[in-house]
Amino acid sequence: MKSTMKIWHNGHLIPVEQVVIDPSDRGFALGDGLFETLYCRDGVPVHLDAHLARLTEGMKILSLPLAWSPARLAEALTATLAVNGLKEGVLRLIVTRGPGPRGLPPPLHPTPTILISAAPVPPRPESARVIIATVTRRNEGSPLSRIKSLNYLDNILARIEAEQAGVDDALLRNNRDMIVESTVSNLFAVIDDLLVTPPIADGALPGVIRERVCSLNAVEERSLTVDALSEASEVFLTNSLAVRPVVAINGRAVGDGLLGPVTRRLVDSRLISG
Amino acid sequence: MKSTMKIWHNGHLIPVEQVVIDPSDRGFALGDGLFETLYCRDGVPVHLDAHLARLTEGMKILSLPLAWSPARLAEALTATLAVNGLKEGVLRLIVTRGPGPRGLPPPLHPTPTILISAAPVPPRPESARVIIATVTRRNEGSPLSRIKSLNYLDNILARIEAEQAGVDDALLRNNRDMIVESTVSNLFAVIDDLLVTPPIADGALPGVIRERVCSLNAVEERSLTVDALSEASEVFLTNSLAVRPVVAINGRAVGDGLLGPVTRRLVDSRLISG
Repeated sequence: MKSTMKIWHNGHLIPVEQVVIDPSDRGFALGDGLFETLYCRDGVPVHLDAHLARLTEGMKILSLPLAWSPARLAEALTATLAVNGLKEGVLRLIVTRGPGPRGLPPPLHPTPTILISAAPVPPRPESARVIIATVTRRNEGSPLSRIKSLNYLDNILARIEAEQAGVDDALLRNNRDMIVESTVSNLFAVIDDLLVTPPIADGALPGVIRERVCSLNAVEERSLTVDALSEASEVFLTNSLAVRPVVAINGRAVGDGLLGPVTRRLVDSRLISG
Repeated sequence: MKSTMKIWHNGHLIPVEQVVIDPSDRGFALGDGLFETLYCRDGVPVHLDAHLARLTEGMKILSLPLAWSPARLAEALTATLAVNGLKEGVLRLIVTRGPGPRGLPPPLHPTPTILISAAPVPPRPESARVIIATVTRRNEGSPLSRIKSLNYLDNILARIEAEQAGVDDALLRNNRDMIVESTVSNLFAVIDDLLVTPPIADGALPGVIRERVCSLNAVEERSLTVDALSEASEVFLTNSLAVRPVVAINGRAVGDGLLGPVTRRLVDSRLISG
């Protein structure tokens, strides 16, 4: 599959093996960039406006101007999906500050690198067993917790801890011991019949599906201690690819360990597919 | 200059313009890697063992095995300096987890990317005016604060804030409001005739020169509030390239705004050159 895939690179659709990243690209040298993961169906990205709005917000936080308008990026995304023969699939859009000289100060006139790659939809497990990560914390005091930056090492460390524990994912706490999200998903819990989710101020990523759940349901944004979470009758994870029930946390069953009614309703809804 | 420089890439010294980074390299896609910056003099890296020990510690934290022994890396570093005709210079060593499939889980058998680039020593300003960054915080709860990972965006954001304020650097606080370091340097202060520096547990990077100052002087590791720092008679920054006095913080002079005796002694010592 890999050798036939094409990648959109700064305006050109080229075979993946011909894509060349400059070693001085600040995305590579310093993690100086952003990405978006977009689920696509019927040949188009779902919730496209929300993804591009978050990307724009991220570029503002990074002081990174982009010559490509959201409309042109949308065209590029759809074209990348089409050229790879995918009707349903996942697109990953990366924007970096591009090449630069040694050191932290950004170049005065950056020439950003934009990459779009397409892939078939990965398998989506029906449920998740998770641990609460002990190796690292979410940085609630950083604006990077509110954007999808290329700085993903904390999440990778937590994910490695989950794999070593033989479970599917890990929940991250912030520096104030509040549960915030998993390594790749936002988190919701049903506590005393109320649907709750950690607030953005605690370090939760403003996920596109998170926002959608909040706008379509009565959701209370509330800081979640480990103890409070252990009282939940249902816990589920959301990202652009799936709504997944959490059936166990640190080896202990959530609720009765089965799919709860609130989670079932959201799994069955058209949250992901738009 | 640039077109004649050679980079060491996975065992080969090649012209910089021929170095190709795979867009699926996890260093580029996720910031999944580490780096070291080494000052070199008389054709060899100074404090080499300390740098390689920190790199090894970082690889342990990242669960990233490396086929290259410290001794072979040392040879590669010296060779890169020599081939570029530099006796004095700066080497940047990057190690990433190498190419991988979509998603966070690391490949079972990673093929790390190793890059070594050389540059002349950049200009080293004699003193620094700094601000206390407001845009972000150091993540004291993450092991990444103790290694030199490729996740440098928080530091970049603080550096951009410093540039917008017209000063040289920014000091970062952690999530408990403690001053920890600057965007590229450790921090020391003289308070009541005592030399103090923020502890590693507050999120300070175990800098090679920091460790050296601590081993050669009576230094107290102590959490530093903004108020405590404002009482300092001297403040200075250290990294592998320089010891720099801080002459102003948020527009207010430190001490009498001149080079203090403790700082002068360290600037005049052979801390940097070994």
